[in-house]
Amino acid sequence: MTHPFPIAQDQPEPDASLLEPASEPGPQKEARAGRRARGGAESRRAARRGGAREQLGQIVRKIPCFEVMNDEALEIIEQNADTVLEEIGLEFRGDAEALALWKEAGCDVQGERVRFPRGLCRKLVTENAPRTFTQHARNPARSVEIGGDVTVFAPVYGPPFVSDLEQGRRYGTIEDFRNFVKLTYLAPALHHSGGTVCEPVDVPVNKRHLDMLYAHMRYSDKAFMGSVTAPERAKDSVAMAKILFGEDFVEQNTVMISLINANSPMVWDDTMVGALKTYARSNQAVICTPFILAGAMAPCTVAGTMTQTLAEALAGMALAQLVRPGAPVVFGSFASSMSMQSGAPTFGTPEPAMVLYGMGQLARRLRVPFRSGGGLCGSKAVDAQAAFETANTLLPTLLGGVNFALHGAGWLEGGLVSSYEKFMLDLDQLSMLHALAEGVDMSENGQAMDAIREVGPGKHFLGCSHTQANFQTAFWRSSIADNNSYEQWDSEGRLESPQRANKQWKQWLADYEAPPLDPGIDEALQDFIAKKKASMPDAFA
Amino acid sequence: MTHPFPIAQDQPEPDASLLEPASEPGPQKEARAGRRARGGAESRRAARRGGAREQLGQIVRKIPCFEVMNDEALEIIEQNADTVLEEIGLEFRGDAEALALWKEAGCDVQGERVRFPRGLCRKLVTENAPRTFTQHARNPARSVEIGGDVTVFAPVYGPPFVSDLEQGRRYGTIEDFRNFVKLTYLAPALHHSGGTVCEPVDVPVNKRHLDMLYAHMRYSDKAFMGSVTAPERAKDSVAMAKILFGEDFVEQNTVMISLINANSPMVWDDTMVGALKTYARSNQAVICTPFILAGAMAPCTVAGTMTQTLAEALAGMALAQLVRPGAPVVFGSFASSMSMQSGAPTFGTPEPAMVLYGMGQLARRLRVPFRSGGGLCGSKAVDAQAAFETANTLLPTLLGGVNFALHGAGWLEGGLVSSYEKFMLDLDQLSMLHALAEGVDMSENGQAMDAIREVGPGKHFLGCSHTQANFQTAFWRSSIADNNSYEQWDSEGRLESPQRANKQWKQWLADYEAPPLDPGIDEALQDFIAKKKASMPDAFA
Repeated sequence: MTHPFPIAQDQPEPDASLLEPASEPGPQKEARAGRRARGGAESRRAARRGGAREQLGQIVRKIPCFEVMNDEALEIIEQNADTVLEEIGLEFRGDAEALALWKEAGCDVQGERVRFPRGLCRKLVTENAPRTFTQHARNPARSVEIGGDVTVFAPVYGPPFVSDLEQGRRYGTIEDFRNFVKLTYLAPALHHSGGTVCEPVDVPVNKRHLDMLYAHMRYSDKAFMGSVTAPERAKDSVAMAKILFGEDFVEQNTVMISLINANSPMVWDDTMVGALKTYARSNQAVICTPFILAGAMAPCTVAGTMTQTLAEALAGMALAQLVRPGAPVVFGSFASSMSMQSGAPTFGTPEPAMVLYGMGQLARRLRVPFRSGGGLCGSKAVDAQAAFETANTLLPTLLGGVNFALHGAGWLEGGLVSSYEKFMLDLDQLSMLHALAEGVDMSENGQAMDAIREVGPGKHFLGCSHTQANFQTAFWRSSIADNNSYEQWDSEGRLESPQRANKQWKQWLADYEAPPLDPGIDEALQDFIAKKKASMPDAFA
Repeated sequence: MTHPFPIAQDQPEPDASLLEPASEPGPQKEARAGRRARGGAESRRAARRGGAREQLGQIVRKIPCFEVMNDEALEIIEQNADTVLEEIGLEFRGDAEALALWKEAGCDVQGERVRFPRGLCRKLVTENAPRTFTQHARNPARSVEIGGDVTVFAPVYGPPFVSDLEQGRRYGTIEDFRNFVKLTYLAPALHHSGGTVCEPVDVPVNKRHLDMLYAHMRYSDKAFMGSVTAPERAKDSVAMAKILFGEDFVEQNTVMISLINANSPMVWDDTMVGALKTYARSNQAVICTPFILAGAMAPCTVAGTMTQTLAEALAGMALAQLVRPGAPVVFGSFASSMSMQSGAPTFGTPEPAMVLYGMGQLARRLRVPFRSGGGLCGSKAVDAQAAFETANTLLPTLLGGVNFALHGAGWLEGGLVSSYEKFMLDLDQLSMLHALAEGVDMSENGQAMDAIREVGPGKHFLGCSHTQANFQTAFWRSSIADNNSYEQWDSEGRLESPQRANKQWKQWLADYEAPPLDPGIDEALQDFIAKKKASMPDAFA
């Protein structure tokens, strides 16, 4: 099946864009054909693309994964998870079809409690679920591979609030939602448009998903997520995707990925199972994620959290295989520690990092794509606490071999806030991870023996031919860090990171131009939304 | 040989102190015996210790190291380093004795250029240098093991400036120096008093080392570093150490470690070689560190920087073995990337992290302790940039298997500034690394199957017996992060991290009490210093 949007596109060129972050206007900046043009090849490509920043492309890891556990420990967790599934079982609430599917598969079903023969869920997953799959974007150059050595970053998901330096913290609106979709579209280091980049609380709850999906479809050409807040909203998501991609294409390809959270401990509820079934049936991907605040929704230990996460995720992924064998699934793990004094979730702490590393190992043993991590923090301000906590989650995200990372940019205050400034600072860190994932260049040029020979003792390398030939691509360059002298920084107003980020996101939104969309498709989407909205009264809860 | 200070001391109890960071005054706080007492066992121990915070003890890593390179790549670097040593050689400037030692060892010495037979330096190091050694502190409970699976953190080293929120950035004084020594003494997660915690520029250059050493000896009981700014100052350091520890003890034990930097590229100068010889002869440890701004002092590639670092460090460590076979040495690597636009060093970037991971692997193959990493950043403010950059160096410091980490706390602005607030924030991160290094608890209690059985589907774990039994030690707890609700944070004045850190360091200094020191020793140290100072005019350059 050919792609519905076979537009010629440049392949991403990571090195060039690492060096020239498009967020920094170059000296060659000029107005041309109604849009900002940039110097050289980058400017020509940007012009063709309608203003999107030069994209880095998904991360293909050339460095090994960090493995915190040995095989013996991993086997213990796997055995324990099987014991949970066999002996305690899980509840599937309010979904008779799911219970029937489990019974037919050989489970012991008592009321809503399902107990699984040892190894059944693992067998269903390993024998049916794909190791890796493509999620298609309407721009084929933006399609992403999910699984293997690839890491895909998507923006923050779910916050009811947004914040920026001028307006402070406030409820999110559909305008904020569109802004974050636009910024994500422009962001070189985000490979995916995500889903609920913030809650647009000014739109009725029962109609919100329509405007959210439309924003992803209209204001971006990156891959996006479907609605999961009710089975019928999942159906609307599939219907709109069919308008965008064509019915046949959606039947045969994965064009959406959706976040199906377990109701930990050990419960899958009808809303989530309903959405899971809808998507799996349509061959659309689901991320089965036990969302765990350890100590409340799982034991307060790393190994206990891992056991429960494995059991719950296995059952979710296996159910998808019962609904449609071969349905694309992602093994999700979201774990936070908690303050045992206040009960508040805490982020950037060592225990969730260990859960991430261990679950990554378990996912690889299960041979399914792995979702975890992101730029998580608990801080209320975009300060050092926010950055420390974020880095302590982001670095494990890459080193732990995460394949799909939600919350890659913008997450603040334990996920209650989508922050404009945090978003920009996180993007810079994601760009850094792209360079780290490249590993050590061991080519002749990388070894640089000629440079050492040319320079010799007591001289400097600045002017040598190797440095001259390599200086543009030698080091990753931050687009937001200030590396000027103290005196220059002082004379320029002593701007701290959030202030620089503030200038940057405003500039990006000012520069934004929507990617082209076939007017017929646009009209059809708008018609669908208008009819749906007219078919029911507004609901705000 | 028995330790000169056989004072009974509690062993550190990492778990308890992780849970109860002594920097958070407990509700049981009360005045007693002229000092702040704390609740329970911690208070009793603190009282006995004269106010020092409950110490965490050096990190013993139970997690594997992250290895960015495969064996083939490591062998290439080793071969290339041998080629540099054999073909290009290194210069040893202004030190006839070093040249004679090399000549005697079979090197080709032309003027000050020394070319080494292939494998000579490696052979000298592997056959003579200890894999691990103890650096004794005057308090035996504070002695540190350097090498193996241990990570020792020392504070920032070298900044001419200091800063805090009220007074801003200014030149360091001896009072600042003493303050940082005192804070380091109190800091649970710093295992070592370090060296030049800031430059006390109000003291003459030629007498500074005396006051600095005295501060480490008098205001702390942790292990410390010697002076390296001139060979005679190294001799003064050894002389003062002999007063403190006793002459015999120093002859037979390592009580100082000192930072010997190569003058990269490929030069060892007479100042550094003089200090190296002085310390090695006295069986005192030297850290041989090529201090490299890649692109200026080494090639602008990771592999090239690694090759040159290995060659330079090998020659330094080998020279120490020629001076005294078996002298304790540490393989040092300090590499920063640079802004190829401004020439400024940049930190927290991916290339230095890769150098760190790779050099750690090379040091382990050489079977010598490894020094690198720390809390490096280029930011001028204690902001998100500072924290991101720091975390991107600190996490590799642990995962890369660093044995001795300078700059563990307080480093700001590329090492130009010792920041009081950054110091406290870094301490918190170091405490986090202690917990991460513990790895996953796979005990029965860690596996927590009883908890999962007790709770079952749809309930919560907060009240279950496993959680009740474990909640005090379950999760690492930050001593400085704010995890309260937005509303509470807002009502308490919206303090950001540096402001909380500011309160903390002032409280610590207010609480500080010096550890006891034999008055006779104190007097002897002061006499030595007075005589030395009287023996020469002040010099300020």
